Amino acid sequence: MEKICFGIDVGGTTVKMGMFSEEAKLLESWEIPTRKEDEGNHILEDICSEIEEKLVEKQINRSDLLGVGIGIPGPVTKDGTVLNCVNLGWGIFNVEEKLSQMLGGIKVKAGNDANVAALGENWQGGGQGFEDLVLITLGTGVGGGVVIGDKIITGSNGAAGEIGHMPVVYDADAEECGCGKRGCLETVGSATGIVREAKKLLASSDMDSSLRDIDGFTCKDIFDAAKEGDEAALIVVDKLTEYLGIAAAHIAAVTNPQVIVIGGGVSKAGRFLLDKIEEKFMEKAFKACQNAKFALATLGNDAGMYGAAALILC
Amino acid sequence: MEKICFGIDVGGTTVKMGMFSEEAKLLESWEIPTRKEDEGNHILEDICSEIEEKLVEKQINRSDLLGVGIGIPGPVTKDGTVLNCVNLGWGIFNVEEKLSQMLGGIKVKAGNDANVAALGENWQGGGQGFEDLVLITLGTGVGGGVVIGDKIITGSNGAAGEIGHMPVVYDADAEECGCGKRGCLETVGSATGIVREAKKLLASSDMDSSLRDIDGFTCKDIFDAAKEGDEAALIVVDKLTEYLGIAAAHIAAVTNPQVIVIGGGVSKAGRFLLDKIEEKFMEKAFKACQNAKFALATLGNDAGMYGAAALILC
Repeated sequence: MEKICFGIDVGGTTVKMGMFSEEAKLLESWEIPTRKEDEGNHILEDICSEIEEKLVEKQINRSDLLGVGIGIPGPVTKDGTVLNCVNLGWGIFNVEEKLSQMLGGIKVKAGNDANVAALGENWQGGGQGFEDLVLITLGTGVGGGVVIGDKIITGSNGAAGEIGHMPVVYDADAEECGCGKRGCLETVGSATGIVREAKKLLASSDMDSSLRDIDGFTCKDIFDAAKEGDEAALIVVDKLTEYLGIAAAHIAAVTNPQVIVIGGGVSKAGRFLLDKIEEKFMEKAFKACQNAKFALATLGNDAGMYGAAALILC
Repeated sequence: MEKICFGIDVGGTTVKMGMFSEEAKLLESWEIPTRKEDEGNHILEDICSEIEEKLVEKQINRSDLLGVGIGIPGPVTKDGTVLNCVNLGWGIFNVEEKLSQMLGGIKVKAGNDANVAALGENWQGGGQGFEDLVLITLGTGVGGGVVIGDKIITGSNGAAGEIGHMPVVYDADAEECGCGKRGCLETVGSATGIVREAKKLLASSDMDSSLRDIDGFTCKDIFDAAKEGDEAALIVVDKLTEYLGIAAAHIAAVTNPQVIVIGGGVSKAGRFLLDKIEEKFMEKAFKACQNAKFALATLGNDAGMYGAAALILC
């Protein structure tokens, strides 16, 4: 009988479940809703039920289950302790020990979802083949993860790879971040931040721009306009990529990765975005750190599931 | 017979040699000049002679020599390859293999000198007891090293921990760094940079300052004046620590260390400097990364020698 493992990505709305072969192949994946009621007490119960059912359905012996990897949307320390995951209603407890106990002693490894996604991209995504990698995800927020020697860097408080909170904007009118600080990369690098910057630019100038014709334009509209040569959109993208280039240069000076993988919804702008970040990076980064390549994430929303499986299989 | 190892720190002027017991005690240390002539070809020869002589003098069997750790003032990759160490006149070669061969097969481990110094501070210095540490050295230049899980982070090109080249200054008149870029931390955080900033401030204002009475004032003079409440000196120290706080916040967002150790000549300003950096750090750093403590380096110029021994003993 082939041995298998589960890679699980717990999100605020859905839990993504993946069953992987020992040879690192995704055999099957599905989603269940994240039941956040009762302080998120049912989330692990639901995960266990799904695992048990799948084992029965596929007639897999428990001895052939190598383990369960799980990504959590909050800080997780090296020993698997979740430190207040507000998205799930969770307090402080060791999720590895608890889930393992609930599964009758099966090996469980946990990590922060963004860190685990970085491991996924390292394992089978845009950073495959590179052991030293940093993932920057540009989505509703900005997140990330650091992988060194094919292992996640967790940090002393489970807070390594918090790329979104690098203080890159110094301007007196730097925007306030959700974290309470001003000038975090997230304030200018997230989809929300990019749209806000575009609105600010259009409101403070009378530049012609195709964006003025789009009610409630999105981040995608901005990139589409920039690709068409829209001057205002290009200014916004230039500013965004300047900050991303600076952040990447800081990251490179600290860990000197082989590759910086850009993911998240904003990364759908593709090579156009990547080339501009790389150009700014080369202007800012120390010569000996300029060897870092830039790549697009390829696993999309599955990166966490893959990375969670990698916690067990790698 | 007690087993021993050597920890060696190769500098541009002198080579610091340390003999350590297996129990991590420095038994003896001495210096030899760094002979840079003939493309630095005599440096390893001289080191070998010193080791061989010391073994004879102390009647130590070769079988009791655990190994030799060596710090090099240039990039060193994970496999021990030196990538052009201009300070020594060296090209590209594997220093671990070469020195090991010259010593008849003794184990040799090499690292960049600043990274090795970080390991030294982690092992027996200001970061003792903390497995996740970053060292920032403020001297003629600004250097550093990253230690995670008691191991040096080398980086994909031997260039991790290049803290001095984090691009923190955005001003249009940001100074050019020795590396060719503008606005590196080194341009404002090195002793040279601090003095230059003070001179710029005094030249561009008519502020009263005790520094105006000191011909060719030094970095120490600036800190002494600041401690006495000199307004101009305080502005300089405030700006310096603002940039150091920002750099530390970036570092914390990437690797979330337990402790950030400040070393180098400038750190002789002591708690006065440390408290100001920490204050700025707390203003800039992401909440979950604010657990980082600040500590002064304690090993001084011996940090590299200690760290080199740690490459063998830890």
